Amino acid sequence: MNKIDGFSKLNKQEKINWLASQVVSSENNSFGFERFWHEDEQEQKIFDDFSENTISNFYFPYGISPNYSINGKMYTVPMVIEESSVVAAASLSAKFWLKRGGFHAKVISTTKKGQVHFSWQGEKEKLFNFFSVNKSELLCSVNDLVANMENRGGGIRDITLIDKTNMLDHYYQLDVKFDTCDAMGANFINSVLERLGQSLKQSAFQYAPFIDVEKEIEVIMCILSNYTPECLVKTYVECPIEDLGDFSGHMSAKDFAARFERAVKIAKIDVNRAVTHNKGIFNGIDAVILATGNDFRAIEACGHAFAAKDGHYRGLSSCSIKNGLFRFELSIPLALGTVGGLTKLHPLAKASLEILDNPDAKELMKIVATVGLAQNFGAIKSLVTTGIQKGHMKMHLLNILNQLSATAAQIEHAKIVFEDKVVSFSAVREEIKKVQLLH
Amino acid sequence: MNKIDGFSKLNKQEKINWLASQVVSSENNSFGFERFWHEDEQEQKIFDDFSENTISNFYFPYGISPNYSINGKMYTVPMVIEESSVVAAASLSAKFWLKRGGFHAKVISTTKKGQVHFSWQGEKEKLFNFFSVNKSELLCSVNDLVANMENRGGGIRDITLIDKTNMLDHYYQLDVKFDTCDAMGANFINSVLERLGQSLKQSAFQYAPFIDVEKEIEVIMCILSNYTPECLVKTYVECPIEDLGDFSGHMSAKDFAARFERAVKIAKIDVNRAVTHNKGIFNGIDAVILATGNDFRAIEACGHAFAAKDGHYRGLSSCSIKNGLFRFELSIPLALGTVGGLTKLHPLAKASLEILDNPDAKELMKIVATVGLAQNFGAIKSLVTTGIQKGHMKMHLLNILNQLSATAAQIEHAKIVFEDKVVSFSAVREEIKKVQLLH
Repeated sequence: MNKIDGFSKLNKQEKINWLASQVVSSENNSFGFERFWHEDEQEQKIFDDFSENTISNFYFPYGISPNYSINGKMYTVPMVIEESSVVAAASLSAKFWLKRGGFHAKVISTTKKGQVHFSWQGEKEKLFNFFSVNKSELLCSVNDLVANMENRGGGIRDITLIDKTNMLDHYYQLDVKFDTCDAMGANFINSVLERLGQSLKQSAFQYAPFIDVEKEIEVIMCILSNYTPECLVKTYVECPIEDLGDFSGHMSAKDFAARFERAVKIAKIDVNRAVTHNKGIFNGIDAVILATGNDFRAIEACGHAFAAKDGHYRGLSSCSIKNGLFRFELSIPLALGTVGGLTKLHPLAKASLEILDNPDAKELMKIVATVGLAQNFGAIKSLVTTGIQKGHMKMHLLNILNQLSATAAQIEHAKIVFEDKVVSFSAVREEIKKVQLLH
Repeated sequence: MNKIDGFSKLNKQEKINWLASQVVSSENNSFGFERFWHEDEQEQKIFDDFSENTISNFYFPYGISPNYSINGKMYTVPMVIEESSVVAAASLSAKFWLKRGGFHAKVISTTKKGQVHFSWQGEKEKLFNFFSVNKSELLCSVNDLVANMENRGGGIRDITLIDKTNMLDHYYQLDVKFDTCDAMGANFINSVLERLGQSLKQSAFQYAPFIDVEKEIEVIMCILSNYTPECLVKTYVECPIEDLGDFSGHMSAKDFAARFERAVKIAKIDVNRAVTHNKGIFNGIDAVILATGNDFRAIEACGHAFAAKDGHYRGLSSCSIKNGLFRFELSIPLALGTVGGLTKLHPLAKASLEILDNPDAKELMKIVATVGLAQNFGAIKSLVTTGIQKGHMKMHLLNILNQLSATAAQIEHAKIVFEDKVVSFSAVREEIKKVQLLH
């Protein structure tokens, strides 16, 4: 591999050719990137322009998970995920709870935030006075930027000066709360914050009570926060224990509920389990985030930081058994958008939102959290009953058999052989070979 | 939307037909899922079988980021990401550091873990005695499962009994350390743990010193942990401050370094900034994780929990300025695989690994961490110099213009108009309309 100047200026085919000149592919020096292009050049261009230096499309399976009842309304949820068993587990949970009252979801709050991070030296009290005097002027300076959002019912909700000098010398923040309605709002928030940063500098420069050094506010950066604990949604399921039914291995509803509750408690106290527990929740959440054109890095970063908010990283869901009622619940921050970004630009993101009956951001928060809880229920149910390997191995085996282009007869044979054996690529290949030699 | 029984048993076309019967699409009741199928039915089947209830492929832009020097070796890195500016920023950083010694990366350790979580009532000391006596027998019980992995140089590294009863009544763990070589190893670890759970129950049942109640170990669950702080890699860049060069707005290298260091410090102490700072790191990391067929939910969950390991959620990267040297560093846990899972099954994941010169898992850890650091450098560089909105808005504008099928002349016009205006879908559409009316 060599270095290259001006790579971004090459066209798509030139980029592919350069790559081919640098790497010998196992498939005769052609990686087949063109095989994954959309046949319609105009439509392909939409995907090419989402990002930079694009040469192909990476396919992710687009699947469908039906039978969610959320607050009495039925949903069929599109999920984009490459991991096997996730869509199956979530769908089973949805159906399980459909017969037991469905999911109940509620948006607690939708506040988003951003900060102007700045350094300032001087008498603290004077800075706070300056802020009081200039607060409305600061807000006026972004009038043109917020006008549209205000027309839609959103805008800036509050702006506060925060003294952070106990943590870092001369460090202060303008902390700004936003309501961005149905937009995720990153561009809006960042534009407003950058303007506020400029206005803050200017106002300080002109503020008479400040001595020279105090007039110099050094704005380090202006940026939205992906930490949105006040953009919060709650979802839960609940039923009498006896309605849970029986489980495999002669496990009674009561035993199942007790084991399930204990598994959730373990995730609350043990970081090793908590991380995997929450990873499972995000298996469900991210699949809907991806399918609807939202940004999973933002959702992940926020959710996991939220899981550590009390100083210990903990499982995000909770389970209780009280007065004979089994209840399983998830409260999670989700800053989502149903307008803007990729939501309408990506044709399948647009289709996903239509399948979900074009929800607003709040409704989408409820749906996404619910799929996370459904997925978590499915995973824990497997873990405390049959174990997860049984289902996983079945899917894994099929993937490998596909890759080996196994015949229908070979597939049936392999299913029997690997019923109680550990599935690995080499083991399956050996088994297929053995069978071929026999015939 | 209605509920449905037996959805998973419908074939792909039937699934699509059912959806169409339930939802009125804006495009005449057809979502166009078929438009995104691969033309080769056999190749499409591979993607369909990764997950369940699949009906189409969700396209993600597959882009190329060149010019990384890691420990003196050149890499061109494939990135899969739908967010604009990420590939561009990472590539700029790679090139910036190429002229300044490149990236230096080192794998610290590669230990992965899993636990058998169980409940037990009795005299603690007796349980620990039981474990000492039966430890080698437990290990023997998984001999057949670990044989292959041991041949490749991996296997079980340690197995410990942990008393967790101070956190939850009667709660203990078997904590098992693994080396899974170049595999991510989830299936391997889970299979071993489920077997260990069975063996543990059996051994306890047969252990003579136990009284009846002590013979009953209740295994709650057996599962790998995605928390792998001991599967750790470090990467850094370093150069004399004066070599950093000049920055826009007449910012000197020294001022830039100071502002950069302060921005990184802020991410260490303020959770609002830390979450967004780390989100940026994962923009780079996840793009390579996706491109190489690894599991981003596992990587995200682990990385963010690691960011909170000392009780405060902090930025993952560090910056220091000492003796005239600017140094920027990232230490992050990354449990990756270059064999197994989707790595060879997904044709573009396979191509990605070939472009990266078929790295082993350790080499891939270095590459992935480096792209995370490069992305973080690019983001902070923008934030402390021009602000991030300038670049973002340019990309956003182009996306919108594409969607509106703007002509070349309209695109040029819009670029000028929106040079200093906030870009939004409605504003751009209005502007295009206005121009059309004028002509």
